[in-house]
Amino acid sequence: MAPTNVNEDLRNERTKCNFNVEELTNLLDDGKINTNRRRDLEEKVLNVKGIRDEIPEDYLSHKEKYENAVRKSVLLYKALREYTDTNIPFDEKIRANLRNSIPAAIVKDNSPFMLHSEMFIIAIMGQGTDEQKEYWLKRANNLEIMGTYAQTELGHGTFLRGLETTATYDANTEEFILNSPTLTAYKWWPGGLAHTANYCVVMAQLLIKDKSYGIQPFMVQIRDEETHMPLPGIKVGEIGPKLGFNTVNNGFLGFDHLRIPRERMLMKNAQVLKDGTFKASPNSKLAYGTMVYVRVMIVNTVSKYLARAVTIAIRYSAIRRQSQPKPGEPEPQILDYVTQQHKLLIAIATTHAYHFTVRWLWDLYSNVNKDLNRGQLDNLPELHALACSLKVVSSADCTALIEKCRMACGGHGYMLSSCLPLLYGVSTATCTYEGENTVLLLQAARSLVKAWHQALKGQPLSPSMSYLKDKSPPTSWNSSLDGIISSFQRVARGKVSASVSALEQYTASGLSPEDAWNKASIQLTAAAEAHARVIVLTVYKAEVEKRAATLSSPLRAVLYQLLELYFIFWTLEKMGDLLLYTKLSETDIRGLQKKYEDLLEIIRPNAVGLVDSFDFRDEILNSTLGAYDGRAYERLMEEALKSPLNAEPVNQSFHKYLKPFLRGKL
Amino acid sequence: MAPTNVNEDLRNERTKCNFNVEELTNLLDDGKINTNRRRDLEEKVLNVKGIRDEIPEDYLSHKEKYENAVRKSVLLYKALREYTDTNIPFDEKIRANLRNSIPAAIVKDNSPFMLHSEMFIIAIMGQGTDEQKEYWLKRANNLEIMGTYAQTELGHGTFLRGLETTATYDANTEEFILNSPTLTAYKWWPGGLAHTANYCVVMAQLLIKDKSYGIQPFMVQIRDEETHMPLPGIKVGEIGPKLGFNTVNNGFLGFDHLRIPRERMLMKNAQVLKDGTFKASPNSKLAYGTMVYVRVMIVNTVSKYLARAVTIAIRYSAIRRQSQPKPGEPEPQILDYVTQQHKLLIAIATTHAYHFTVRWLWDLYSNVNKDLNRGQLDNLPELHALACSLKVVSSADCTALIEKCRMACGGHGYMLSSCLPLLYGVSTATCTYEGENTVLLLQAARSLVKAWHQALKGQPLSPSMSYLKDKSPPTSWNSSLDGIISSFQRVARGKVSASVSALEQYTASGLSPEDAWNKASIQLTAAAEAHARVIVLTVYKAEVEKRAATLSSPLRAVLYQLLELYFIFWTLEKMGDLLLYTKLSETDIRGLQKKYEDLLEIIRPNAVGLVDSFDFRDEILNSTLGAYDGRAYERLMEEALKSPLNAEPVNQSFHKYLKPFLRGKL
Repeated sequence: MAPTNVNEDLRNERTKCNFNVEELTNLLDDGKINTNRRRDLEEKVLNVKGIRDEIPEDYLSHKEKYENAVRKSVLLYKALREYTDTNIPFDEKIRANLRNSIPAAIVKDNSPFMLHSEMFIIAIMGQGTDEQKEYWLKRANNLEIMGTYAQTELGHGTFLRGLETTATYDANTEEFILNSPTLTAYKWWPGGLAHTANYCVVMAQLLIKDKSYGIQPFMVQIRDEETHMPLPGIKVGEIGPKLGFNTVNNGFLGFDHLRIPRERMLMKNAQVLKDGTFKASPNSKLAYGTMVYVRVMIVNTVSKYLARAVTIAIRYSAIRRQSQPKPGEPEPQILDYVTQQHKLLIAIATTHAYHFTVRWLWDLYSNVNKDLNRGQLDNLPELHALACSLKVVSSADCTALIEKCRMACGGHGYMLSSCLPLLYGVSTATCTYEGENTVLLLQAARSLVKAWHQALKGQPLSPSMSYLKDKSPPTSWNSSLDGIISSFQRVARGKVSASVSALEQYTASGLSPEDAWNKASIQLTAAAEAHARVIVLTVYKAEVEKRAATLSSPLRAVLYQLLELYFIFWTLEKMGDLLLYTKLSETDIRGLQKKYEDLLEIIRPNAVGLVDSFDFRDEILNSTLGAYDGRAYERLMEEALKSPLNAEPVNQSFHKYLKPFLRGKL
Repeated sequence: MAPTNVNEDLRNERTKCNFNVEELTNLLDDGKINTNRRRDLEEKVLNVKGIRDEIPEDYLSHKEKYENAVRKSVLLYKALREYTDTNIPFDEKIRANLRNSIPAAIVKDNSPFMLHSEMFIIAIMGQGTDEQKEYWLKRANNLEIMGTYAQTELGHGTFLRGLETTATYDANTEEFILNSPTLTAYKWWPGGLAHTANYCVVMAQLLIKDKSYGIQPFMVQIRDEETHMPLPGIKVGEIGPKLGFNTVNNGFLGFDHLRIPRERMLMKNAQVLKDGTFKASPNSKLAYGTMVYVRVMIVNTVSKYLARAVTIAIRYSAIRRQSQPKPGEPEPQILDYVTQQHKLLIAIATTHAYHFTVRWLWDLYSNVNKDLNRGQLDNLPELHALACSLKVVSSADCTALIEKCRMACGGHGYMLSSCLPLLYGVSTATCTYEGENTVLLLQAARSLVKAWHQALKGQPLSPSMSYLKDKSPPTSWNSSLDGIISSFQRVARGKVSASVSALEQYTASGLSPEDAWNKASIQLTAAAEAHARVIVLTVYKAEVEKRAATLSSPLRAVLYQLLELYFIFWTLEKMGDLLLYTKLSETDIRGLQKKYEDLLEIIRPNAVGLVDSFDFRDEILNSTLGAYDGRAYERLMEEALKSPLNAEPVNQSFHKYLKPFLRGKL
């Protein structure tokens, strides 16, 4: 990237940067070889003819947006298949692919094909027998069929057992009869379902001889492969516009006694034999696999969204000048305002925190998955609890910070051409999908309360919760990174303990266990969040330390500054809890506040270098405010001039409506 | 409102409600007579033929949305003029109009005419001489011309002195020459400017004989009244799509040495005589008037946005059922989950807090305005500081809670048909426009620091800051409403004091006053926010108390429950500060947490009644999830079926792109 015409302020920022940006990029890519591979793929795919929009998508109608997204997705998926090295095993491929953001450059509000690769194929892999995998994965991977995954219904989301779609087994014909008995039983939300997919993995309640056998997965053809017409017994369509994902073609799907062959139930885990005999899964936890995978991916996705948002906000803050605190001097870059640094530098640190966390989590997932294939399930609950907690805090933190980045860009951040509203829209969805955050926190709280009771009984705890056992009284405040981790552990312990007491009191006052749980649930979610904070602080620190020795000393210094900023930010953020559960004092707080203000000043000169190191091409950023060359004002105007409304000096509505009105003739 | 087919859960909720909903509606309207007037106006305007959309706007292209908005705005403004009682004085009219939300039913993302009435007319009123008002107000009020207000530029927003547009006086011709010397001097953002307005109040830097005389207002014709063509010397167009306000037709405007007569400068305050003599405004604070007015209006606007959002979220939470905590029992309404109550009931209390605050603030504004007209300016700084602070906390709180309401509706809240994303989009803009919130907090902090020094010198303080003088040591914690106010005062004092110390330390360490201010600015904004909290708590309580005697006892009880909920919510929210600056203890916190959980339970049965009392017609709510009858699922499906994509079973993109792709022929 060496545009000739770079904004002078940005050029100066890059000169000031005191570490090697390329070294950090390589670190984030897990090695120079991956950086090169990624850049090579970007270069090839982004130069496919016709793959980029001429007229900004935001000017199109809802229907045109969809049609344009199909056109581009075809080119994108073809190019990705052509140019991606397929000789790497699945696990490694995923890890190497964590930094790939190419689709954002092509279908910024996401592709109608996205659930094909991200859910349909994953579901077949996790739920299909070897024979089923052999047949369906081949067709799916070759893109002979286009699939999606239909679980959520109009009336039920996170609560799986509530799903109303039924799959009733008819032993006479060896078929399942899929049915939507009510309006609320309609599938609602699956991406690509509306007009794109012709196959679908459907989660439905299995009924055999009037008895329910829980929610099971079924492979269902929904459209004719030749004509694409919905098959008889299928009602399918789109659900309408949303805050984001408007090109994803989210759909609804209802069944009117649709019959499918017995072999279409995905039977890796539970099975239905020809005569209708049900064979349960050896372990109900096996169904967790896919869910955990998706949650791990969310941690990655949101940290990349945030990295894009903060790249835009930092670069814009370097070229935007505002106000005149000192008479006679030029207006400062807004990045020089400490309140602006306070909003943005923590966003950089947060992308690092989750960037490193997701790598640790992916390796854990990978290992547990290998265990699973050997029939070893012991570590699954721990992984499940971790993925839950980390999905919640990463989605909540990154979404909040993306919005902070947008607002830090003032009015121009409100323009769609900044790309910041889009990033918020797609990011906030992660707080809701794949397990709504409050519900997941309560699930995590349940593990914590269980662990608390185990600890009381002297039973062993899983590694990530073992700190709950500690009973040492608080010592004086310690501002080192380890001291802060230990204080956050103390807070989590305090909150779990307080929740358990509240539960006991509410039960003692006569409430049922369920009602006591409900009554204490605000405290329980707070305890679960506190636990998640412990994990992130611990993992972020450990992962930076693990890499430190291999780094040049300037880069190592910068990474530690961000780490420390992150720790102090959260200490000040959670001051109330820390005052309550540790020996933190007012003097300590003054010191930490001062230290925080000093760290902002130290990190400030490297801010542009830090976001440059994320190495997002302009096509991926898709932002008038955030391009590498910093020509924000020129781009805002260039983009505005593309508006179809600007093609004519006078819009027809003047003659039709406005003029008669102003003449009093209406 | 008596639909025949109301959801059973909602019917039950309404039966359970233990206060008179109509009594509360009348209270919110400031009297039964206003309720009737409002309903009458709604009934008349909303039944104008053609005034409501047939195809939901969200399916249209950007250009079509604009054209449709002009069509409807013409009908809306005509109907409003026809049916609104014009015999009421301006001040009373505004106050009586505070509860009017009719435009939301017609142009939900706002009208391209909105700045005509909300800024153009207000600017003429505040800045025009009697003669200018006589001429321009008549034309503007009669809607012979359509105006807007152009201040913000591509390169400058909140910092007025930085505006680059120049108005150079030419004494030979007695004209001003308006010019945009740079790209960043282009006006950018004004609503209606792009293709709708033909006149515009332009804020420009006045130059006379190479000397600058500050930013002054000019009345500029930008389009021909007959043909609507931009006049020579004018470059005008639209700025493109945004997170919200997409039908407002925000525009850009550049001048190429455009000459306008001297009389087109609005000269109520500063004047330029024929020979080029400049006569300064008697008081520079007079320019505050319009700004203060707009900020008062924002407090009202956001509290109504929140009232709409929470109406939607509460009704949906009453009909949505989820999960099964107790085996064998039906799935509970999600409103029965305490975590859901925690998200939503505070939103109801917050609408009350700002509802009452804005009435108090409006009366204050009204009185100060009367003073101004008598040449009495003493109370303007106090009003200005209050409007600043209240604009910031109301816009920030209501926006955050609207988003909480949206997320509390899970996936369906993400649908545009819920109306919640729209409410977020228009609400979050208020954090940025009319003074960016961080900048305003720093302005408020400047008054606080000044007051602090005045207090040290024993000088008198303005009423809203007089508590800063108190020097009594903290007494034991007191959970009464007055006790909480006094504790929040203590926090604000503590934070102002800490900020002043930080300023002194940074100055002592050698920083210039400006750099010390910058370095301490995180603490200064926190101090300003703490002060704003004191104001809201104090005013909310006082205003409820003022009305209490006139109310029936059940309604009075409900209002006090919400008041107390609000106080305890904020106590728990600001626990850290209170631990630091008051004698709040861990035991007190446990007690407050328990009290909070009990209050949620007490308020819960009235939740639907409380939102019903806001009395938003379904057309104003515009929400599939929030309609009075609670038929959320049916409406979601009905709305989806209106999608043009659903008009055909197979979209053309299948034949053009998808099929060849799946056949490997692409």
